[in-house]
Amino acid sequence: MLREGSWVVGDTLIRFLDKMCVHIQNVKRNLDFNRIEEFISALDNAGSIFVMGAGRSGFVAKAFAMRLMHLGYNVYVVGETVTPRIKPEDLLVAISGSGETLSVVNISRRAKEEIGSKLVAITQRPNSTLAKMGDIVIVLKGKDKYERNHELSKLAPLGTLFELTALIFLDGLVAEIMNLKQLTEDDLAERHAVLE
Amino acid sequence: MLREGSWVVGDTLIRFLDKMCVHIQNVKRNLDFNRIEEFISALDNAGSIFVMGAGRSGFVAKAFAMRLMHLGYNVYVVGETVTPRIKPEDLLVAISGSGETLSVVNISRRAKEEIGSKLVAITQRPNSTLAKMGDIVIVLKGKDKYERNHELSKLAPLGTLFELTALIFLDGLVAEIMNLKQLTEDDLAERHAVLE
Amino acid sequence: MLREGSWVVGDTLIRFLDKMCVHIQNVKRNLDFNRIEEFISALDNAGSIFVMGAGRSGFVAKAFAMRLMHLGYNVYVVGETVTPRIKPEDLLVAISGSGETLSVVNISRRAKEEIGSKLVAITQRPNSTLAKMGDIVIVLKGKDKYERNHELSKLAPLGTLFELTALIFLDGLVAEIMNLKQLTEDDLAERHAVLE
Amino acid sequence: MLREGSWVVGDTLIRFLDKMCVHIQNVKRNLDFNRIEEFISALDNAGSIFVMGAGRSGFVAKAFAMRLMHLGYNVYVVGETVTPRIKPEDLLVAISGSGETLSVVNISRRAKEEIGSKLVAITQRPNSTLAKMGDIVIVLKGKDKYERNHELSKLAPLGTLFELTALIFLDGLVAEIMNLKQLTEDDLAERHAVLE
Repeated sequence: MLREGSWVVGDTLIRFLDKMCVHIQNVKRNLDFNRIEEFISALDNAGSIFVMGAGRSGFVAKAFAMRLMHLGYNVYVVGETVTPRIKPEDLLVAISGSGETLSVVNISRRAKEEIGSKLVAITQRPNSTLAKMGDIVIVLKGKDKYERNHELSKLAPLGTLFELTALIFLDGLVAEIMNLKQLTEDDLAERHAVLE
Repeated sequence: MLREGSWVVGDTLIRFLDKMCVHIQNVKRNLDFNRIEEFISALDNAGSIFVMGAGRSGFVAKAFAMRLMHLGYNVYVVGETVTPRIKPEDLLVAISGSGETLSVVNISRRAKEEIGSKLVAITQRPNSTLAKMGDIVIVLKGKDKYERNHELSKLAPLGTLFELTALIFLDGLVAEIMNLKQLTEDDLAERHAVLE
Repeated sequence: MLREGSWVVGDTLIRFLDKMCVHIQNVKRNLDFNRIEEFISALDNAGSIFVMGAGRSGFVAKAFAMRLMHLGYNVYVVGETVTPRIKPEDLLVAISGSGETLSVVNISRRAKEEIGSKLVAITQRPNSTLAKMGDIVIVLKGKDKYERNHELSKLAPLGTLFELTALIFLDGLVAEIMNLKQLTEDDLAERHAVLE
Repeated sequence: MLREGSWVVGDTLIRFLDKMCVHIQNVKRNLDFNRIEEFISALDNAGSIFVMGAGRSGFVAKAFAMRLMHLGYNVYVVGETVTPRIKPEDLLVAISGSGETLSVVNISRRAKEEIGSKLVAITQRPNSTLAKMGDIVIVLKGKDKYERNHELSKLAPLGTLFELTALIFLDGLVAEIMNLKQLTEDDLAERHAVLE
């Protein structure tokens, strides 16, 4: 194992993994089950579901959208090729740690104000522009992108903590929905793409 | 909180979060620091870095690529618009839980055999086709996509566990590299896209 | 207008546009209406339609997929987030000028051989691997990517001519389908995304 | 050849191809060579080039970006994974037929006003919001998306004519640049991706 001065390759990685565990326990304690229930109801009652996010939050949004498709929902990613016009009875799930990402805020506003669709905002900032527009707001505490916490800045720079938290939370929500609907892994596998 | 029969919304989500913590501790115990050191060296010595993955592993690959760009590496995603021809001195990082994904295996083979590039394989199956081709193999234990573990199947269907593990591991690696290179969050922020 | 030696900015562009017109007239003369009719029937009889292509042919495939969605077809792009498992009753439309693009050939083979889906191959090479697998083969003469025609190489390098020809042909096919189904621009506009 | 009532499969497609030729001749007559020269200079003097567009104009933007990479420019697509922060010395090329596409207009405004980058607007509407912001405006006459020309609506619905015109124009520009820089097809092929 390489040593240069006082540190060893792997120490930071280990501290990162420990931090993740502590953070997941934190997330767990702060879950708002009423919001989660409303979120699941909104997914179930939507005509179609549209998801969006920018940057790494966009990848989280897509990973969630893929599982929604596997679960049998009619789902689209904003900006992908076959995504149709959103309608009033549809649901937009918008993911932004800061809640201020230009395209996410502007497109969410259009969906809310011009179309009349329902908006689920997933963010770490309950007072952000996105959160204020949301019909349902899921607040997931990460490190604020604008915050400069010394230790967190070194372990989980920029939106890292929010993005990981959002993906883990949404994958937990998928498990929750599987249980509610009594869906098995085989049900999901049946819809999983094979041309890849 | 909604109750239907014996379960409550949120129970499965909580079990999922607990499982994730246990799993992260498991990953930590099984880290192979020599491989990690080789991986970091390979990133540092590469001309350009190419990353690839399919489906949700593809989103993990992109999230990692974005951070490599923030760290100052010259990095491309296989299949994106501005990705140039790979060269012998370049590095391909391929992510596949099963290690058998058609496009990932075929493209990795071309990079290795026709071009002569170095290959880092990130997979949960050390005996997979992808792992066998890898110059450096990072094995991250998830639930095998083909495995049908009863409890895991319900909490983390298909590749979920591998995908989350890979993203968390790679974000930990980013922290490790930041420490090695003494990069700060501001260094990363300076390269972060603002048009989004 | 800038002059450097004997040439003038714009001359090459003008020669390119003239070449395109001549080429479109050529394409017109070589249309195989029986194949076009079979293609339209295959689109209409498919469960779902999957389209794919790599590089610039991939953008052509996506542009066509978007219009198929506007026309009311159930269509997916191979590799995008919400694309489900392909089934035997589905149709794969694969676009490759050379007909030898690694991922396009391998994925088409899987769709044909493992799934039993129908394959429409759009290519400029009737003897290519892709064309040989196709149930319906649409041959669109471009400049062969491997061909080194002196004038064409300078005006329309690499796959340019095929890619433009394919996009123009497919947009003409969209017009044809609109006419056959008596669809108006308003019918298409109704499905056009507004969140963009 | 199938006949149903008075029409024949292929007639509309043929009329479409003829229309395209007439339109290309029109484009040719209306080329503004001073703007084209400014555009090429802006590409050559930019630090990095960023391109963007939404929907099918987005595919045109990506097809152009790929060729710029082949030509040796340092180019990125807004929204793709490895795209860094834009800087004052960089150039944004924004493509929108209407010149009013929400994300394109908002992101162009940010690049201009907050960053101070140069903006090339490619649009069919010289009075659009996008055009008004452009340092260089390339007007390419298509059918206005909001226009309801009876014949054009049936042959080239929505943005079809603009999108095709933009792609053909930009591919002609690539030929022009190849000539100016005395680049050969082999120079481009050398940078063309092989992992696809």
